Amino acid sequence: MEIVEVLHMNEGNGDTSYANNSLIQKNMILCIKPTREEAITDVYNSLCPETISIADLGCSSGPNTFLVVFDIIRAVEKLRKMTGTHSPEYVIHFSDLPSNDFNSIFRSLPRYVEDFKKEMGDGFGHCFFAGVGGSFYGRLFPSKTLHFVHSSSSLHWLSQIPKGLEENKGNIRIAASSPPSVIKAYYDQFERDFSTFFKCRSEELVMGGRMILSFTGRKSESHNPSHDVLNIWTLLANCLKDLVTKGLVEEEKLNSFHLPMYEPSLKEVKMVVEKEGSFSINVLEGYTHDFGESVKDGAIINTVRAVVEPLVVSHFGGGIIDQVFNKYEEMIGECRMTEFVKDNFIIIVSLTKI
Amino acid sequence: MEIVEVLHMNEGNGDTSYANNSLIQKNMILCIKPTREEAITDVYNSLCPETISIADLGCSSGPNTFLVVFDIIRAVEKLRKMTGTHSPEYVIHFSDLPSNDFNSIFRSLPRYVEDFKKEMGDGFGHCFFAGVGGSFYGRLFPSKTLHFVHSSSSLHWLSQIPKGLEENKGNIRIAASSPPSVIKAYYDQFERDFSTFFKCRSEELVMGGRMILSFTGRKSESHNPSHDVLNIWTLLANCLKDLVTKGLVEEEKLNSFHLPMYEPSLKEVKMVVEKEGSFSINVLEGYTHDFGESVKDGAIINTVRAVVEPLVVSHFGGGIIDQVFNKYEEMIGECRMTEFVKDNFIIIVSLTKI
Repeated sequence: MEIVEVLHMNEGNGDTSYANNSLIQKNMILCIKPTREEAITDVYNSLCPETISIADLGCSSGPNTFLVVFDIIRAVEKLRKMTGTHSPEYVIHFSDLPSNDFNSIFRSLPRYVEDFKKEMGDGFGHCFFAGVGGSFYGRLFPSKTLHFVHSSSSLHWLSQIPKGLEENKGNIRIAASSPPSVIKAYYDQFERDFSTFFKCRSEELVMGGRMILSFTGRKSESHNPSHDVLNIWTLLANCLKDLVTKGLVEEEKLNSFHLPMYEPSLKEVKMVVEKEGSFSINVLEGYTHDFGESVKDGAIINTVRAVVEPLVVSHFGGGIIDQVFNKYEEMIGECRMTEFVKDNFIIIVSLTKI
Repeated sequence: MEIVEVLHMNEGNGDTSYANNSLIQKNMILCIKPTREEAITDVYNSLCPETISIADLGCSSGPNTFLVVFDIIRAVEKLRKMTGTHSPEYVIHFSDLPSNDFNSIFRSLPRYVEDFKKEMGDGFGHCFFAGVGGSFYGRLFPSKTLHFVHSSSSLHWLSQIPKGLEENKGNIRIAASSPPSVIKAYYDQFERDFSTFFKCRSEELVMGGRMILSFTGRKSESHNPSHDVLNIWTLLANCLKDLVTKGLVEEEKLNSFHLPMYEPSLKEVKMVVEKEGSFSINVLEGYTHDFGESVKDGAIINTVRAVVEPLVVSHFGGGIIDQVFNKYEEMIGECRMTEFVKDNFIIIVSLTKI
């Protein structure tokens, strides 16, 4: 089955839904607020569009979906009130893979919009919302129509599982024991995908349009970080291995399970953007995002589950999913206080279409 | 509950889904093909847009959803091949109420698009698809962005149940026994809604943009047609009355059930369009659409059910729905050969934004 058909966050509003388990992603969205505001201010001041067209790529569904775009609109409204000009029309595109839960977005949107309109008060311009289902590793929007692109917690996902991962036995992505051929296979896929992403967006954005991207990266150039052993993904691999030991999953099945994920370094990001050539980099920075004591084990488990369950179920079947995450809970409890690395390295890039 | 929350076709792909029970709507779509082609030809020849922006309002979900827009694109591609010009970019907006099954659209779209691209061959321009959830009795799109609006089998639905239907006891919409006050209440709602529809679209369409609408109307000016007794909706009312007789539904509950539906005459349509003033009428015609012998009782029952089930369930609860349609089947079988009126009066309007 194609990645575009199975890579999506858990649907709906239930206990294991992404909508109710995306606190960590929310923190990421809040952290890049200043960078985002600088960019939208620049768009508004330099392009003065009558209609501002904004796209959120990898919007998923749930409160975070609306959080970002309302925040962007809020920033513009503040600016236009300061300058005493009338409110522009806003066109907001919620985009994600076709398997995303768009029904949930459309059904909850009216309530959110009503509250937001009240907050914005009199003179607030029309807001138009559209859903766009498709991979951001292809064209999604007509030429030269977007002013602002935002994407959070999405670009570390590849368009497909790289070819040539046969030697990555026992790992589910790049890990300490992965041979160079596996690292190269993942990197090549990343380079192709990332470059395609920038090419597509460069055709869709107007000249001077801005883009703010944040995604998980890696701090060092090396792919062999000491904390590899106990981050959220290696813990998932360990849970799956445990099921192999117990005879619940065939070893062969685990060996053919690969996460379509690559966490680039700052240098790799810079290299691809410069080589592609359509964007200038305003900000490129990484920061260590501590889940913090406020994020409980349960929140981490549920976040991982909300993100990865469709991939696990599609590969192993639905029967083992509860066992995987019961084990996850057990393991995270055992190692939490000592070895478990709670932080993520987040890369933020702010770019201008040139 | 608001009409916008409950008025939607049955979801998914099951036996009672709209997707599998919309043969009659499909026939309507096919019947207006020549009028639609004239209009899109005019748009293409007179406006020569680099990007053609098309909206289908009341798109629902299922094969019909794609049928119309592919047909429109097909017509443009034929034209541009004849003139030897390159293919424009196509932007297609699928719009319906927020409760529509957009997930089903996005999930089945890639397969349909792939086949369609093959059919169109080399040189075919980019196609971009977006879902827009909202009522067409309000603004849905940014100003002056649309070139072509299509709506089939939707505009006979009102934005809300009119006030003042207390005297319409035993009927579920305008019927032979409805007093003038009920007819006026329905007409006033229609006039307000229809006028709002044209005002909103006039802001969204570019000058010279075209609109093709088809919906159920009534042949005579009178609201008391002789065939009123046995059309598809009065049959539904009779089924509900039968459940009252059997003590399964309270009479009071039936008396407060009203379909938010108005079937205007050609004269009424003309009057509202001219009064609103933003559009010139190119074609305004009605034709009697015979379900035909090819459409079996089962297809009629399932079509009515796919359309009306959410409204019935929302008002009466889900418990009676199978009984309603079992009775419907029994009744349609009894009267089919003698009195049941199989035809619909369809109004087609083709307009230009002036």
